[in-house]
Amino acid sequence: PDWIIYRSSFMHLFIYFALGSRYVSKTATKTVSEFEYDAPSMKTAVPGPNNIQLCLSLGLQNVGAVHFFCNYEESRGNYLVDVDGNRMLDVYTQISSIPIGYNHPALIKVMTNPNNVSAFVNRPALGILPPENFPDKLFESLLSIAPSGMSRVQTMACGSCSNENAFKSMFIWYRNKERGYASPSEQEVGTCMINQSPGCPDLSILSFMGAFHGRTMGCLAATHSKAIHKLDIPSFDWPIAPFPKLQYPLEEFVRENAQEEARCLEEVEDLIVKWRQKGRPVAGIVIEPIQAEGGDNHASPDFFSKLRNIARKHGCAFHVDEVQTGGGTTGKFWAHEHWGLDDPADVVSFSKKLLTGGYYHRDELQPDKPYRIFNTWMGDPSKNLFLLEVLNVIRRENLLEEVTRSGKALLQGLYALQTQYPHILSRARGQGTFCAIDACNDATRDSIMLKARNKGLFMGSCGEKTIRFRPALVFKEYHVHQLLNILNDILAEHK
Amino acid sequence: PDWIIYRSSFMHLFIYFALGSRYVSKTATKTVSEFEYDAPSMKTAVPGPNNIQLCLSLGLQNVGAVHFFCNYEESRGNYLVDVDGNRMLDVYTQISSIPIGYNHPALIKVMTNPNNVSAFVNRPALGILPPENFPDKLFESLLSIAPSGMSRVQTMACGSCSNENAFKSMFIWYRNKERGYASPSEQEVGTCMINQSPGCPDLSILSFMGAFHGRTMGCLAATHSKAIHKLDIPSFDWPIAPFPKLQYPLEEFVRENAQEEARCLEEVEDLIVKWRQKGRPVAGIVIEPIQAEGGDNHASPDFFSKLRNIARKHGCAFHVDEVQTGGGTTGKFWAHEHWGLDDPADVVSFSKKLLTGGYYHRDELQPDKPYRIFNTWMGDPSKNLFLLEVLNVIRRENLLEEVTRSGKALLQGLYALQTQYPHILSRARGQGTFCAIDACNDATRDSIMLKARNKGLFMGSCGEKTIRFRPALVFKEYHVHQLLNILNDILAEHK
Repeated sequence: PDWIIYRSSFMHLFIYFALGSRYVSKTATKTVSEFEYDAPSMKTAVPGPNNIQLCLSLGLQNVGAVHFFCNYEESRGNYLVDVDGNRMLDVYTQISSIPIGYNHPALIKVMTNPNNVSAFVNRPALGILPPENFPDKLFESLLSIAPSGMSRVQTMACGSCSNENAFKSMFIWYRNKERGYASPSEQEVGTCMINQSPGCPDLSILSFMGAFHGRTMGCLAATHSKAIHKLDIPSFDWPIAPFPKLQYPLEEFVRENAQEEARCLEEVEDLIVKWRQKGRPVAGIVIEPIQAEGGDNHASPDFFSKLRNIARKHGCAFHVDEVQTGGGTTGKFWAHEHWGLDDPADVVSFSKKLLTGGYYHRDELQPDKPYRIFNTWMGDPSKNLFLLEVLNVIRRENLLEEVTRSGKALLQGLYALQTQYPHILSRARGQGTFCAIDACNDATRDSIMLKARNKGLFMGSCGEKTIRFRPALVFKEYHVHQLLNILNDILAEHK
Repeated sequence: PDWIIYRSSFMHLFIYFALGSRYVSKTATKTVSEFEYDAPSMKTAVPGPNNIQLCLSLGLQNVGAVHFFCNYEESRGNYLVDVDGNRMLDVYTQISSIPIGYNHPALIKVMTNPNNVSAFVNRPALGILPPENFPDKLFESLLSIAPSGMSRVQTMACGSCSNENAFKSMFIWYRNKERGYASPSEQEVGTCMINQSPGCPDLSILSFMGAFHGRTMGCLAATHSKAIHKLDIPSFDWPIAPFPKLQYPLEEFVRENAQEEARCLEEVEDLIVKWRQKGRPVAGIVIEPIQAEGGDNHASPDFFSKLRNIARKHGCAFHVDEVQTGGGTTGKFWAHEHWGLDDPADVVSFSKKLLTGGYYHRDELQPDKPYRIFNTWMGDPSKNLFLLEVLNVIRRENLLEEVTRSGKALLQGLYALQTQYPHILSRARGQGTFCAIDACNDATRDSIMLKARNKGLFMGSCGEKTIRFRPALVFKEYHVHQLLNILNDILAEHK
């Protein structure tokens, strides 16, 4: 019909007006290299004068963490533009949450499709009044990428909410097992209303030192990466196991690393027994496939496979937190796919690059009654629309292969840099483009990052002295070369 | 310039195609009565055949709470259309989260404004890389409606996140006071990483029986409305005070209600002392201006004023949770404005009708360091754009006056019904359109609600046997008459 033609011709103009630049593609089918900029371009130091002015204008708000203000309209693909007109190669991507770069034409197309308007302006209470197309959209998007063994998904608004509700599912599952799937006693129903046992039982979640699972109070009790996250917030007496401290490159330290992993696994079993004995049984184990905020710490597929078996043996649920690792950045859609397990987890949580939060779970983790896992919005269908288009782009442009290719180039480049500057850099590591390298200390790390930013390379930090690379999935080999050139220039000048 | 004309003419077509109905306005300035339907219209019982089919198609997902599937494209103003073509007068509005009705032309205009595209397709990490227009949008939207005494706001993704982070702010504030604003000790920094005191102190939040503040683990420890929310989830040993059980209409039981409120306030003070003595001092008191989920329980301005003084006297922060009461539904923008206090609270949290979550706070509740209150997204600027337009509509159409007028008509109508059917209905109560009435028992309540739904009136429930009314702000007196007519028909037929 007419309106389709109309919409399509409108869209060309629309992109033109919205983005207003000669670099912009006029169709939605171009790949990143055809619509984005070709290189960084710096006009001032960062933050420049416009940035400083804007920061002042925010006055009393919580602005201590603001790096700089961005011109998102002018940003494209891998390049983030700030309000002083500085264009940076962005390998931090909003704390790893931009899947296919800025202003991707495919996402703009979602916005301009009249069929999608209602999903944006009428946010439903998804748990009680879902939109007509919700089942279809769920199957096309989230269920089309479900982890092995999982056919259920629950959407949520953000990563913390996803992990909180995943924890709750594990507690409910655990207590139902303990009760033999009988109805709760009157005493349980009564005591839960006043926060007391047995209705609110003393169950625990086992987490790992260095972990980050979010900052609401349940998640925070399983988070152990930085004191600034946890100081002054009441917490739970839950067991904390050591995460393996491996030596890199992994393939050169196989024996040493296996010993370290065995030590940690032994400690996990000891803690499960100890916490059961002190009346706080472990209902679930939560772990990241690669600890991100805690310093980009890896472990082997063998470690995860054995940990999964320990969970099974002791009747604990196994929760893999893929909030940062999920969405393709490791070269597979889920980082846990690298483990090669048919039954990798009981729960897999996600957010960030998937644009909506949520978690998958095995059938038996489904709560026995409605409203046990519930809130007003239960996610946001407009985010599912964007996710569906992101998945289309990933498939159409073979982005997982691109990530594998770019990731290899990036890691090789980091190896070369640490060989050339061994007094400054060490422990290069990564999977796909999910890469990191350590500086000799935090001051050096911070100095390198600021110098890089002023040369047009915006990176993230994690752990004590680590630089983390979290580019979008449209990060190509020529972007890797830009990145390495800038880093090399800085290191050559360093001290 | 040309493109503005183009956009404007496109918008008319756009609304036409997106909504496709003779009732639809072709401009964004029409009021609700000019673009919505004129009455309910029922074609099948609810859920009808299309609904049942869709529910089956969701298969293994968490669907136990689904009432019915909606056709949001065809819904308008106060009328929600389901997938069987049934059009219902909606006075539950997605658990009270739709501020100005379905498909309001002003909100569709936000979607079709090319200047807004970037805010939808490039969701920033707001805490570190805000968009250029963020300060302006914040001042025009959230800060333009800041509660008395508050010039700071922190956006969040949902109501639970807002309350969790408000609790954290109160804990941080309380511990900073205790430390005399000195740096934390090495012992505090060390112990917080392993969930232990003094780094993770045994502080508490005082809440009220019947309260609902959300379902993440911190919020849930302050929630005491239904066992299904809390069963099997570990909790904190926090004090729980009785919420006044008042008699209605309030003006007929002034003396009795004042006694009941005095009893509850005395208990609050006792609990604060008791919890301090047992080493779990109360850092903050959290309360809803009207308990919603817990059964629409009211208290007097005098009660809240005295409670606020008790908090001040004992050095506890005072947190008013306006997630459900905020946004105009009581006839004032914030329910706490009815108390007439210059300094009503230290923290006011919001979500639902404000479309974004968040909380306001007094200056001294600002954390002393960046990254203490932080997460990846810290809200969503695209929701601020919608909120800004909602506020424009509220002002332009004097919706707070409309709410006051409709609310009076609704409450008078409910009084008349309970006089006519005293064996079925009692305790009609409300402020603005935030009204409720009790049935004689839960089975009768549920039966009335189902019958009403089949006649085209969709209501919500709360507490044990309460019907709650949560219409949008565009609910007019003629909608009140439709509602009362349907209820009257059902009650006349009842038993």
